[in-house]
Amino acid sequence: MAPYGSRLVVPVDLKKKPWEQELPLHNRWHPEIPPVAEATTGELFRVEMIDASGGAITQNYTAEDAKHADLSAVHHLSGPIRIVDNEGIPAHPGDLVAVEICNLGPLPGDEWGYTATFDRENGGGFLTDHFPHATKAIWYFEGIYAYSPQIPGVRFAGITHPGVIGTAPSMELLNIWNGRERDVVENGIQSLKLCEIEKGTDKWEKIAREAARTIPGRENGGNCDIKNLSRGSKVYLPVFVEGANLSTGDMHFSQGDGEVSFCGAIEMSGFLELKCDIIRGGMKEYLTPMGPTPLHVNPIFEIGPVEPRFSEWLVFEGISVDESGKQHYLDASVAYKRAVLNAIDYISKFGYSKEQVYLLLSCCPCEGRISGIVDAPNACATLAIPTAIFDQVPVGPRLVRKPDVFKCTYDGNLPITKNPSASS
Amino acid sequence: MAPYGSRLVVPVDLKKKPWEQELPLHNRWHPEIPPVAEATTGELFRVEMIDASGGAITQNYTAEDAKHADLSAVHHLSGPIRIVDNEGIPAHPGDLVAVEICNLGPLPGDEWGYTATFDRENGGGFLTDHFPHATKAIWYFEGIYAYSPQIPGVRFAGITHPGVIGTAPSMELLNIWNGRERDVVENGIQSLKLCEIEKGTDKWEKIAREAARTIPGRENGGNCDIKNLSRGSKVYLPVFVEGANLSTGDMHFSQGDGEVSFCGAIEMSGFLELKCDIIRGGMKEYLTPMGPTPLHVNPIFEIGPVEPRFSEWLVFEGISVDESGKQHYLDASVAYKRAVLNAIDYISKFGYSKEQVYLLLSCCPCEGRISGIVDAPNACATLAIPTAIFDQVPVGPRLVRKPDVFKCTYDGNLPITKNPSASS
Amino acid sequence: MAPYGSRLVVPVDLKKKPWEQELPLHNRWHPEIPPVAEATTGELFRVEMIDASGGAITQNYTAEDAKHADLSAVHHLSGPIRIVDNEGIPAHPGDLVAVEICNLGPLPGDEWGYTATFDRENGGGFLTDHFPHATKAIWYFEGIYAYSPQIPGVRFAGITHPGVIGTAPSMELLNIWNGRERDVVENGIQSLKLCEIEKGTDKWEKIAREAARTIPGRENGGNCDIKNLSRGSKVYLPVFVEGANLSTGDMHFSQGDGEVSFCGAIEMSGFLELKCDIIRGGMKEYLTPMGPTPLHVNPIFEIGPVEPRFSEWLVFEGISVDESGKQHYLDASVAYKRAVLNAIDYISKFGYSKEQVYLLLSCCPCEGRISGIVDAPNACATLAIPTAIFDQVPVGPRLVRKPDVFKCTYDGNLPITKNPSASS
Amino acid sequence: MAPYGSRLVVPVDLKKKPWEQELPLHNRWHPEIPPVAEATTGELFRVEMIDASGGAITQNYTAEDAKHADLSAVHHLSGPIRIVDNEGIPAHPGDLVAVEICNLGPLPGDEWGYTATFDRENGGGFLTDHFPHATKAIWYFEGIYAYSPQIPGVRFAGITHPGVIGTAPSMELLNIWNGRERDVVENGIQSLKLCEIEKGTDKWEKIAREAARTIPGRENGGNCDIKNLSRGSKVYLPVFVEGANLSTGDMHFSQGDGEVSFCGAIEMSGFLELKCDIIRGGMKEYLTPMGPTPLHVNPIFEIGPVEPRFSEWLVFEGISVDESGKQHYLDASVAYKRAVLNAIDYISKFGYSKEQVYLLLSCCPCEGRISGIVDAPNACATLAIPTAIFDQVPVGPRLVRKPDVFKCTYDGNLPITKNPSASS
Repeated sequence: MAPYGSRLVVPVDLKKKPWEQELPLHNRWHPEIPPVAEATTGELFRVEMIDASGGAITQNYTAEDAKHADLSAVHHLSGPIRIVDNEGIPAHPGDLVAVEICNLGPLPGDEWGYTATFDRENGGGFLTDHFPHATKAIWYFEGIYAYSPQIPGVRFAGITHPGVIGTAPSMELLNIWNGRERDVVENGIQSLKLCEIEKGTDKWEKIAREAARTIPGRENGGNCDIKNLSRGSKVYLPVFVEGANLSTGDMHFSQGDGEVSFCGAIEMSGFLELKCDIIRGGMKEYLTPMGPTPLHVNPIFEIGPVEPRFSEWLVFEGISVDESGKQHYLDASVAYKRAVLNAIDYISKFGYSKEQVYLLLSCCPCEGRISGIVDAPNACATLAIPTAIFDQVPVGPRLVRKPDVFKCTYDGNLPITKNPSASS
Repeated sequence: MAPYGSRLVVPVDLKKKPWEQELPLHNRWHPEIPPVAEATTGELFRVEMIDASGGAITQNYTAEDAKHADLSAVHHLSGPIRIVDNEGIPAHPGDLVAVEICNLGPLPGDEWGYTATFDRENGGGFLTDHFPHATKAIWYFEGIYAYSPQIPGVRFAGITHPGVIGTAPSMELLNIWNGRERDVVENGIQSLKLCEIEKGTDKWEKIAREAARTIPGRENGGNCDIKNLSRGSKVYLPVFVEGANLSTGDMHFSQGDGEVSFCGAIEMSGFLELKCDIIRGGMKEYLTPMGPTPLHVNPIFEIGPVEPRFSEWLVFEGISVDESGKQHYLDASVAYKRAVLNAIDYISKFGYSKEQVYLLLSCCPCEGRISGIVDAPNACATLAIPTAIFDQVPVGPRLVRKPDVFKCTYDGNLPITKNPSASS
Repeated sequence: MAPYGSRLVVPVDLKKKPWEQELPLHNRWHPEIPPVAEATTGELFRVEMIDASGGAITQNYTAEDAKHADLSAVHHLSGPIRIVDNEGIPAHPGDLVAVEICNLGPLPGDEWGYTATFDRENGGGFLTDHFPHATKAIWYFEGIYAYSPQIPGVRFAGITHPGVIGTAPSMELLNIWNGRERDVVENGIQSLKLCEIEKGTDKWEKIAREAARTIPGRENGGNCDIKNLSRGSKVYLPVFVEGANLSTGDMHFSQGDGEVSFCGAIEMSGFLELKCDIIRGGMKEYLTPMGPTPLHVNPIFEIGPVEPRFSEWLVFEGISVDESGKQHYLDASVAYKRAVLNAIDYISKFGYSKEQVYLLLSCCPCEGRISGIVDAPNACATLAIPTAIFDQVPVGPRLVRKPDVFKCTYDGNLPITKNPSASS
Repeated sequence: MAPYGSRLVVPVDLKKKPWEQELPLHNRWHPEIPPVAEATTGELFRVEMIDASGGAITQNYTAEDAKHADLSAVHHLSGPIRIVDNEGIPAHPGDLVAVEICNLGPLPGDEWGYTATFDRENGGGFLTDHFPHATKAIWYFEGIYAYSPQIPGVRFAGITHPGVIGTAPSMELLNIWNGRERDVVENGIQSLKLCEIEKGTDKWEKIAREAARTIPGRENGGNCDIKNLSRGSKVYLPVFVEGANLSTGDMHFSQGDGEVSFCGAIEMSGFLELKCDIIRGGMKEYLTPMGPTPLHVNPIFEIGPVEPRFSEWLVFEGISVDESGKQHYLDASVAYKRAVLNAIDYISKFGYSKEQVYLLLSCCPCEGRISGIVDAPNACATLAIPTAIFDQVPVGPRLVRKPDVFKCTYDGNLPITKNPSASS
């Protein structure tokens, strides 16, 4: 008989604060953050994670906690996990670590999540100029499905995934990051600091001073927010330090492409069951540097076979002309913004407030595409929404239906206790 | 018995030049270009189209024609087609025209296409800094499949679609376009002029002077290059002039999201079978202006049910750090560029030249996604390639395979006469 | 430049009777029916076909023609086509012929079809005890879609395929067929004879006497009525005579699993574009005899990538207890009958007559599954119906809807001229 | 805040025997088996289940336990669960209970299963004439994936589902069952008796004497073995007794259509998370009796949205001619047997023993279809296998590959400890 089941290598305790966990979490990338666990190639191991806010954003039906969220602390990652092969030899810089996500989900007993927007002055979001105030929706999970009292008439199967998964950077790579981001990162984010647990020693002071934030995705993977990195997918991560030092966190029950509201997936606590391989020398063999140093690489991944199947999509176009009518040259970000705004307006005609739709499009399994990127001067982006997520609202397609059959409003702050989909 | 089959409203003759066609084509948008045909709501009608280059790019195995392509003439559109209802009342400004694409394909007897890049000085493309020279691949169609002697080892089912479909702008909208594009459009494109057929009269001189180029997608639809606008899909176009004046062209046997090489789909001649409805007052009821005037709208569409089904995808990430290592702030265009470059490098390890892969990713059914657009400072874009397009090359997934089993090179200009996939 | 497009090897003229076609058709299987055309491996060739009834069932809105259909003549096949390799060497007995269906569709200008039931005394059908009278529905095609004035509220994309595709049997195999079928085939079918064209000569008398009917599928493929043998699929057929002698016919715009009404797909004229390979010695290498001789084999095939995508299915179960309450032992045919009857009753609650639903389930892309075949004494079969085929009728799923919103009746014979879906 | 998560209404303890469980299990259908739990409409509740053999078939690498399996005891069901509405009013006979499967899976800590065949004399299976001896394969789960040391080179995502789900029959329905099955059920199965726990009292003697076996599916649902009844699906069950008395069991990690080897899915312990609705009077409104009494109905269900996505299928045909060459008249069971035998032979050419393939086709997500059921005298059935389940073996499609690259044999009894897929 073979062993089976997964070995829990990083547990979390949701009753404790992020800095009270038995195995310390971390919210910065740095080569000297020591591994808290080890996993061997071929074994199935389990990693548990707290939610992106570390418990700061709660189940209360108010957006006050989102309004005052401390963005300097978000993304308490589980790990680092040192990856070694069957003979105990660790992954080396230049190797690839192939990480297969065999299973994942919410933590048992904690089957809920939230989607929020931040205040414009405290992090904002993709459409913060249109939605400057903090709002929040709570989602409850019924197995594969999620529903929200704040956005009634909607229920959908999530494509659950970790927002953050990555390896530790080498010092050289970290220096590249810190160098190039110095000028563009906004002040509010630059001033973020390591969380409490890492204080005290000289070493931690050094790490806190040098380490990179977990907000963006980078060469090591990181906060890529790729919504299809779900069950059965496999990501090939470059190794920059001995042991690879794999970290993960920021679990999403579901997310739309772009995660437009920023705190924008259905954020939750959760677990991953992973299986790793080491591909010796794989970084050189399979990846190609896209910049001045051999470190300028990006991960590759394969999508798993069990995503929800949707057959009917309603698609909104956007071009790179902004809301003031100004032309931007082949700018896919502007085009996508326009597509999202169009979708929000259309769906709001069916009885939702725009705040509700903004939250919804940030977290439902909608697809954001770069359709045309060469037809000067307009980039064309599209946002495709699977109509099956609306379980009571007749939002297209096939018939253009009269948008008057469903009415609900929610400004992101009002308590709503009735769950309209509970009886469906 | 009911009538059946489609009525041919715009025929083309591939033996004639664009300006010799019986029903004049047009390559500009202008409200005063007169309709050449009429279609009634509910009837199935057929529109034929010449290829994007108007026959200038030929089946010859050389990129010389792509190199010297006259971009001022591309997109000879078929139409305008005036849309009227069952009682003969035309579509009015403020209505929506719902256009269903019931069928489409190459023109019988002309089952081939091409994918090309332009010279950097003559139009360029998304990666023109990396691929500054004109290249070309010829594709032959075997029913739903396409293969190219220039890119052996690849054969795939296309998601065929029109690159351009749109309604005529009103004078007010045209003025908005001309105003906002004045500063950002490059000189080479701005100097484009109407093609020969439209010369001579005072009216045509006026139109030629005022009309907008067909290169970008805009409020009227236009060259959106949405690769999923295929069989069974339905697009809701705003109406700006009486009769809607629907035009279409630039047929693509297949295209990748972004159409990165610019002349970048599998360009071909072709036909559409369309069915229209008029939604009276629909523009106000279903679309929302996203700018300073009520004209700042964008079309909505629904995807059809018969796209090729792919189950295994290899995905490349890109972040908004450019090839020089410079940081861009949440720039999805830069992130997508990086993802495409990564994919090109990876696939070129399997025996292809980078020119071959650039052409391939521009025209195969790959998906370009905006994965993260809020995680400052990096946008994260992904390019997903269905591995089934490789019929002989072991490009992932599931095993990281040794990239040494397949060798071929093609610099975009060399004649290759053998069709390696013909015997498969 | 390479040649492209397909070579027409078997044309048909729909204005002529089956026995007046330039290349003779045939409606029996016999090794001595001479090839009418030849195709070379690797080339794309086109075969045209008349409809299953040979024009006897017409577009008239009456079931009189179905009532008096001459089943002795159905399935006028196009071919045989002799298959040779690049050096002109024909396929040999013991080889496999791999036939790829690159494209197919209705014949241009003949975009309509019919679904019918026969009288119980003249062929019947799967549920002839419940539906003993001839009925008929006419379908009109709008590109990928079909709709019927007789079954309003329904419109769907077909999975178009040839009902019959097969190779000629050897004399030895033909003798096996004639022997084993002698006792089980009903009288009415046994008395069938070759059609007119084959009369006159001694040789034809011999063939007419010996040849097998095209009704059933057999070792050579034949009338397998596999609804997924559509665009992009590839069937591996055993070769029993020199040249393989490939024949095909009985085109279906769409069919449900089982083709329950017998004349039960959307029958139409049509064309195939095929590409063949010869796998030398493949019959022995890849197939295994399942009976007393090496000839007892069955074809293998691969499904193509462009079938319509449906996401929501309503599924009806059936067990092997018949309508009288009698138990049958693990009988999948009885179980499937029960599942189909259940589906007919359910859908008829939404305003349809049972005759309409019987015709619909015979021709729409529904799936018939053998779910349990071992749980004595009940086989369990299921019929799954994609709910998207109903474009106006709220037939499930997700909400159990009140079945009172839609009313229409049709007894299979009444002229109905209005097309309710034309305006959608 | 709303409550969330599921309420455990039926726990099981895998360390205990079936008859030692805290809440008694049952392996017969009878109206008087008392409910062990209650669930309210709209609430999410959790049911745990032991495996079909009740622990008799173990993880040992020998088929001895399968050989001596006591079929009189299989299917220890969890329940009955009494279903009541929000006001405490139970489901009544004539209602429908809509049961949504929100989630399911193996029991934590017990992530393994088995597929077995029984001896011909002890239950047999669909192909018992060809495979008369007991065999067994053990499967280990890695999240969504399963692999078996006994069938190397295979790894796939399961479509997990309960084999048995049903409501209690009324006495009238039970009498119908017992009457009609008396003559056809084999002796060995007829002699089965209730398991130990139910012994002792007069009432239990009566129940044991009258109750129906759980082996077949029937009007109440039951052992339908519908492999698509997975996450997100919803089954509408008729109610025959007050409270509906819902029971479920026989969890399958994965099963092929037909479950051909009889003990044939990947059998495992597991859990369901369910949500019920009561549709008052729904039995009469939505179901139609298909026999002499109003009780002759069958359930309806809807398939969920998260089944594994496969794009490439290899399909084997079978016709209703048996292995001796004898013709059967439109017999779908014979046709399916032939299709399965053909598939076994084909795949065994790639290095597997036939016993291995028989087990594999019984439990992998293959599809069994009734393709033609009217083309006398041959029914045509097909078996479609997703080629992606083979992770190392080049079993089709697209190229007919030489079947010599992979060698392994397993007679169903030999211990094999190496897991060839562990390193993939």
